[in-house]
Amino acid sequence: MRSNIYKFGELIEDVTAHPATRRTVESHARGFDAAHDPVYADLFTTVSSFSGEKILRFNSMMQSLEDIINNAKLKRTMYHLTGTCSGALCVGWNAQNVLWNVTFEMDKELGTNYQARLKNWILMAQEKGLTVAGALTDAKGDRSLKPSQQPEPDSLLHIKEVRSDGILIRGIKAMICGVAAANEIFILPGSSYREEDKDCAVACVVARDVPGLTIVETRRPSDNREYEEGFDIPDTAITQAYLLFEDVFVPRERVFLCREFQYCQKIIEYFTANYRACIGACVAGQGDVMIGAAAMMARANGLASTTFNAKLIEMTINNETTFGLGIGAMAMGKIHPAGSWISDPLLAHTNKVHVATLPYETKRLCQDIAGGIAETGCLPSFKDFTDPCYGQLIQKAVKAGKNTSAETRARTARLIEWLTLGAGVPGCMHGGGSPDGAKQVIRLNTPIEEYIQYAQKIAGITEAVPEPEKKK
Amino acid sequence: MRSNIYKFGELIEDVTAHPATRRTVESHARGFDAAHDPVYADLFTTVSSFSGEKILRFNSMMQSLEDIINNAKLKRTMYHLTGTCSGALCVGWNAQNVLWNVTFEMDKELGTNYQARLKNWILMAQEKGLTVAGALTDAKGDRSLKPSQQPEPDSLLHIKEVRSDGILIRGIKAMICGVAAANEIFILPGSSYREEDKDCAVACVVARDVPGLTIVETRRPSDNREYEEGFDIPDTAITQAYLLFEDVFVPRERVFLCREFQYCQKIIEYFTANYRACIGACVAGQGDVMIGAAAMMARANGLASTTFNAKLIEMTINNETTFGLGIGAMAMGKIHPAGSWISDPLLAHTNKVHVATLPYETKRLCQDIAGGIAETGCLPSFKDFTDPCYGQLIQKAVKAGKNTSAETRARTARLIEWLTLGAGVPGCMHGGGSPDGAKQVIRLNTPIEEYIQYAQKIAGITEAVPEPEKKK
Amino acid sequence: MRSNIYKFGELIEDVTAHPATRRTVESHARGFDAAHDPVYADLFTTVSSFSGEKILRFNSMMQSLEDIINNAKLKRTMYHLTGTCSGALCVGWNAQNVLWNVTFEMDKELGTNYQARLKNWILMAQEKGLTVAGALTDAKGDRSLKPSQQPEPDSLLHIKEVRSDGILIRGIKAMICGVAAANEIFILPGSSYREEDKDCAVACVVARDVPGLTIVETRRPSDNREYEEGFDIPDTAITQAYLLFEDVFVPRERVFLCREFQYCQKIIEYFTANYRACIGACVAGQGDVMIGAAAMMARANGLASTTFNAKLIEMTINNETTFGLGIGAMAMGKIHPAGSWISDPLLAHTNKVHVATLPYETKRLCQDIAGGIAETGCLPSFKDFTDPCYGQLIQKAVKAGKNTSAETRARTARLIEWLTLGAGVPGCMHGGGSPDGAKQVIRLNTPIEEYIQYAQKIAGITEAVPEPEKKK
Amino acid sequence: MRSNIYKFGELIEDVTAHPATRRTVESHARGFDAAHDPVYADLFTTVSSFSGEKILRFNSMMQSLEDIINNAKLKRTMYHLTGTCSGALCVGWNAQNVLWNVTFEMDKELGTNYQARLKNWILMAQEKGLTVAGALTDAKGDRSLKPSQQPEPDSLLHIKEVRSDGILIRGIKAMICGVAAANEIFILPGSSYREEDKDCAVACVVARDVPGLTIVETRRPSDNREYEEGFDIPDTAITQAYLLFEDVFVPRERVFLCREFQYCQKIIEYFTANYRACIGACVAGQGDVMIGAAAMMARANGLASTTFNAKLIEMTINNETTFGLGIGAMAMGKIHPAGSWISDPLLAHTNKVHVATLPYETKRLCQDIAGGIAETGCLPSFKDFTDPCYGQLIQKAVKAGKNTSAETRARTARLIEWLTLGAGVPGCMHGGGSPDGAKQVIRLNTPIEEYIQYAQKIAGITEAVPEPEKKK
Repeated sequence: MRSNIYKFGELIEDVTAHPATRRTVESHARGFDAAHDPVYADLFTTVSSFSGEKILRFNSMMQSLEDIINNAKLKRTMYHLTGTCSGALCVGWNAQNVLWNVTFEMDKELGTNYQARLKNWILMAQEKGLTVAGALTDAKGDRSLKPSQQPEPDSLLHIKEVRSDGILIRGIKAMICGVAAANEIFILPGSSYREEDKDCAVACVVARDVPGLTIVETRRPSDNREYEEGFDIPDTAITQAYLLFEDVFVPRERVFLCREFQYCQKIIEYFTANYRACIGACVAGQGDVMIGAAAMMARANGLASTTFNAKLIEMTINNETTFGLGIGAMAMGKIHPAGSWISDPLLAHTNKVHVATLPYETKRLCQDIAGGIAETGCLPSFKDFTDPCYGQLIQKAVKAGKNTSAETRARTARLIEWLTLGAGVPGCMHGGGSPDGAKQVIRLNTPIEEYIQYAQKIAGITEAVPEPEKKK
Repeated sequence: MRSNIYKFGELIEDVTAHPATRRTVESHARGFDAAHDPVYADLFTTVSSFSGEKILRFNSMMQSLEDIINNAKLKRTMYHLTGTCSGALCVGWNAQNVLWNVTFEMDKELGTNYQARLKNWILMAQEKGLTVAGALTDAKGDRSLKPSQQPEPDSLLHIKEVRSDGILIRGIKAMICGVAAANEIFILPGSSYREEDKDCAVACVVARDVPGLTIVETRRPSDNREYEEGFDIPDTAITQAYLLFEDVFVPRERVFLCREFQYCQKIIEYFTANYRACIGACVAGQGDVMIGAAAMMARANGLASTTFNAKLIEMTINNETTFGLGIGAMAMGKIHPAGSWISDPLLAHTNKVHVATLPYETKRLCQDIAGGIAETGCLPSFKDFTDPCYGQLIQKAVKAGKNTSAETRARTARLIEWLTLGAGVPGCMHGGGSPDGAKQVIRLNTPIEEYIQYAQKIAGITEAVPEPEKKK
Repeated sequence: MRSNIYKFGELIEDVTAHPATRRTVESHARGFDAAHDPVYADLFTTVSSFSGEKILRFNSMMQSLEDIINNAKLKRTMYHLTGTCSGALCVGWNAQNVLWNVTFEMDKELGTNYQARLKNWILMAQEKGLTVAGALTDAKGDRSLKPSQQPEPDSLLHIKEVRSDGILIRGIKAMICGVAAANEIFILPGSSYREEDKDCAVACVVARDVPGLTIVETRRPSDNREYEEGFDIPDTAITQAYLLFEDVFVPRERVFLCREFQYCQKIIEYFTANYRACIGACVAGQGDVMIGAAAMMARANGLASTTFNAKLIEMTINNETTFGLGIGAMAMGKIHPAGSWISDPLLAHTNKVHVATLPYETKRLCQDIAGGIAETGCLPSFKDFTDPCYGQLIQKAVKAGKNTSAETRARTARLIEWLTLGAGVPGCMHGGGSPDGAKQVIRLNTPIEEYIQYAQKIAGITEAVPEPEKKK
Repeated sequence: MRSNIYKFGELIEDVTAHPATRRTVESHARGFDAAHDPVYADLFTTVSSFSGEKILRFNSMMQSLEDIINNAKLKRTMYHLTGTCSGALCVGWNAQNVLWNVTFEMDKELGTNYQARLKNWILMAQEKGLTVAGALTDAKGDRSLKPSQQPEPDSLLHIKEVRSDGILIRGIKAMICGVAAANEIFILPGSSYREEDKDCAVACVVARDVPGLTIVETRRPSDNREYEEGFDIPDTAITQAYLLFEDVFVPRERVFLCREFQYCQKIIEYFTANYRACIGACVAGQGDVMIGAAAMMARANGLASTTFNAKLIEMTINNETTFGLGIGAMAMGKIHPAGSWISDPLLAHTNKVHVATLPYETKRLCQDIAGGIAETGCLPSFKDFTDPCYGQLIQKAVKAGKNTSAETRARTARLIEWLTLGAGVPGCMHGGGSPDGAKQVIRLNTPIEEYIQYAQKIAGITEAVPEPEKKK
């Protein structure tokens, strides 16, 4: 592939070897390894509903409750294996499922033939076993203005020109996860739009190295350590990129929505319903690793992990809450007439609120158990740990538990730092959308007037109790 | 039926007419009404897996995820209709499903024929459309002693004698819900037991008025109001009773476990897994009524309910969390070889912890929105409200919102008092077992060593990290 | 005194003997007992700053940090002695201190002589050792309308007529605590007012039995039990009344603010600053009793109280947080030029938010430790407990811990019911004003722009960062 | 001073110029600047109780409530100025005050003359205006073993030899804050000790560059950025060091406790009482900066900061709770006979529990308001921001609010990253001791038996309710 990814002003020639992207590529590779590992193969592969062939699960259509529950299980497992987010095994997967349903509606109502195009692309992706990142979030510009009011039109990715053979897109998608490990990028609109903003209504797929696309990786806490030797950072990572589209051409066959602005709301609705149901599994999986790290740290400190049972239980409760509530959202969902599962929005958005809060408590508990050494990474560097002059003294200082080496204690402390204060923090607050947005959906899905009627009947109230008129 | 229920030292001649039990009977009756109401009939009836006949759902076997989700939905609906717990539509239902699975195991392993007996009884219950309370909790006695060590053997219900035609049981079951509205009482062991305590290992079913059984209803907050005229209490209620068994004879056909102590653990395990999954729907349903009551109160105070949107959303989040996590526990459950569904214990017990905390917050939010008048029932009595001398002044004081009468505001305040501080509080803390017990189950179901291995691999730690040896 | 208090449509002839008021009078009497008890005398008495005589502390001016801290300590102690609120030892006390400062300002700025009048009254109150309830909260009417817009003018207490020798007041004060045990009632405006509402701007003091005043006590959870024999309710209580003023004459010497609406804001400001600082001690004191009750219940259940150490510690943390933050508000306060202490508003209102939330958690923890018997008062009545026929069986059922009688367990369960779900719940949410109001004060007292400047300097930002202009 | 500080295996020649320490030195320097700034001078200077001369406040004895409140105010102000912890203006200050009291007790009881030595040193420190770091925490070794049982004696700093002219100390103090900016280091024992561990009982003061002392700075989140150009890190910092003592000689005059193990408990008790009272001001000050940063970020995003009023209020509540509760602990404290203030331990330790939890919530709220760009530092680096090729596009992507530049938005995002996930996180969990330790102190200071007596009296229980006997 063409080199088009930059970080720290430097072009990354080979994503599989460069320190800024190598770990992310390897993290994603564990998903492919799992597909060939007897322990995980059932979870990581499935049969294509189109071709009947065995495919990677993250390229599949989710056509039943069992299918979507396996999405959640796969993500939790990926966190177990990597400790963090593998964006290119996740967003694109959900995107194609959601579009499968929406193109069905569009074709039916508008007479378009988007679904056939999408099917062709999915078949190709299944056959090749592609990793597909998803790009929704635009740079956005001024949050108080609509897209068409933005002084800088490139603040949102938009259609610059529609040609007979395809479209020209330009603008900026921001904070896109896993691109460095992706073969392709599935583009969805970042919001619902009105008529005047319809140029932003675009869904399509592009190769990661498509001409006109420049990718700049963001810097994250302690990411310099990725350039170092030693154990100050674990051998796994996450990337988040800004995608700069400068008149990128997308051929017709890869365009699945083009200015049909009235369908963006549907895309957002379906996408968030599934995504926010499944994201509970992600934070649960990372929380599981935090339980393991905290218990290991207790032992490395010389204490039994059972000393901290109450806190470990609290951590589990947090993990299982987001996991189980997500599963509940799936189970209360339903199959779309087009054939792909849509989770229940009320439960899914309720879950998002927990996903934006409980992991913070789990991190706090992890630091609480681990002690000062892990709380703020309060530990000399690998270089100091191995310094020929005073390194032995540092190791003496770090050694604690009888059965564990100084290095084990140091590595565990660094893992906890990375999980709670470092590049392993995957952005549960705003990733997949902000909790404030979720609360709006919750409000819209709460039938207050119906609940008032229940209360009225139980209280024996017969007069109507309307909302007071607004004062003028 | 024989009169054997007492309260305040008085024998209740007719449970359908006496103020202490009338409301509970009527609450349960709403379940029967619903079975004949086109809006609710699908939820409140189903087809018997034994006879193929249409039956009340709360007499059915739950043989699929859909079946058990309908259990949760039915309970949430019952709370919508009554504002509180209808114990006799719930515990007995779960009890017979759980025993269906356990008698299957017993028959297979011990060569008993319990399941056939149970089937006969269930068929009868389905045919007659019985309401069946369930009785698990024993009086217990000294919590630090095992049953066989109790100075007072009647602290637990136990088998006094096994005869050829049946058994003689005696002892005390406490805090049993809905008995006054029940036809029969399904008895399960209250805990797991060891060999020496095997007399407490008994499962059977008795008529509510079986000879030798005396029932004493407990007194609950503000229950005197049930004896009054007026609106200081809504027209719905809950009952909780002490069951005093003095050598009650249970014929063989109604005995489903008799001293096989080693199966009590299974009963508790299956029972709590389902019960704690479903109880999330109960507290959600009551929370829905609290949302309705709070919104109504805001209006009765003269304010738009939207003023309190943030708090109403928080209430919804609490409700949907326990509901949805319960559904998640069901969806991660599985069918027992005998044919009845068992929910996932880890998620179910996690849910119990939330059931023991979130409703307290929902109540607090309800009082927060409602204002001082509802917080502590700070409102003159119905008698004062209608006093010929100063009643008009009291009504003037209570009248607030332009569109609502003083009576509506008073009734709403009393409903909120009842829901948050009164007899409508159904005991979400210890009902269905205590959260501390749930936490033990959570701990047992958390694979800490497995999580440590994930953490080790990510941190690059190769040495084993065992728990330190215990000091002697 | 004239009989003018009613409950359940009945005139209470003697407040010291009638079951509806007797316990409240006795609760307040414990404050007088304490003044003569060597253990408590230093706290419950002090020296008058006016006369130099020894007086009851709750009639004193608070002229130093030590003085106001003793206010908090006295309240916490009163809760230790009674388990609940003794309103007539508290609100009137604060009212006179606050008015001392405000009359000083008024006299200085308006040339009035209110302070001299107030001093005379205080001297009399100190000499006679009066208990003085305070009345701020009006019935209010429609919460979306200002006083002068209310369809019912009596929704707020207001000046009907100003005469040369005094004023005529009418209207309704609601939810006034401790009146039954009070000699006098100190009236303050319930809010700040504008010119058009100036008739509501009135501060004065009246005898509890002043002609034209009718008092109706509200009904509270389980208050019927006050009319019964036995131990289903403890021997202490709280009262909250509606005060119906129908053209009550107040002589000049007892009027301290009369239509000077622009000073109402000051009164509210000073009153809430002190009140919300001190109320932390009240809920702490009740929380202490809950700790005692929970620990006692654990033992009565047969368990060591240390089993619940983590929960008991959490309860203490809640108690000490509201107590200590209140003390912090006092310590950051200052002496008013008139001589009476004013606590810091930002910390006092922050405390109010905790006072409206933490006691709910303390109650939950208390129920958690105590078990099902106390959670919802799930226990047969005293009548059933002593029933000649089955009472022995009930007592057998209730007896648990080896060292404690069935009666002790029952009494403890009833105490916890009363504290957490009964008439002992003193209204920490809206009592002394609602938390939403407190949050507004907090916002007003947070110097956001100053904090932005700190952030700017640390981030090295030099351009101004103004609030965006409002769209039109 | 002698160069004896290392980081990344490199000797730091000049702490005022080296990137690893420069910012910390400058942060501390702001305390000296403030002493000469008319706005702050009253807070940052005071009069010596020994010499009557004007001195820096952080070298003073705290002899009154006002004095110790000024300690809290000074710390909150330092956080306003630097955004983080200035350890050398804080721990040493408290250490000398605490030892002033303890040496008084020792001299009185043991006939030693430690206080006179201490006074001489304090006079010198006041005269020279020294910054003094404090070192309590030892490396500790195996947490399940006492000091004398440690396989590695250097795990704790200990007395190797007592000579006539002084002592020889060796061992390791870990995670010591602000050493790089300190002139001297005040050493206190890290725990209470028994006879067999008395070599660890040592209090003394050494110059930062004393022979035999090697200092290794720890690495903290994103500390590499301190070596870079640009705005990816603000111009302020914190340091935390491991102090390796290899037979360091301390002359008699600088030794204030030498093997008198029975006084270590007192030191810990007094030290934590003051420290945990004051630390509430530290986290409040950092929380204030987070409020400023969040409000600024909202504007930089194009939104009014008032959009987030509810969250900003919650942040203020967190800040004022730890600040105000700390003040409460001070106000309930008392003057020691030796003349230095001791805060109330129960309130101080309660505060520590909040200090270990509330800042995590404040950080979460800060990230919640700020959006994804700040949550995980999801922003390209300064190098990419200014890249000649695509830098303009990145700036276009980052620019949002109409009135704010892209650079302001980027700088604010980096500030929030630093405050919530970076080197500005000062370790509120275990800094100054862990919350679990605080909870033990809380338990010891809760008079449970007294609270039981209150509960008993209110419930009318006359029999004793003892703790059950332990089973054998």
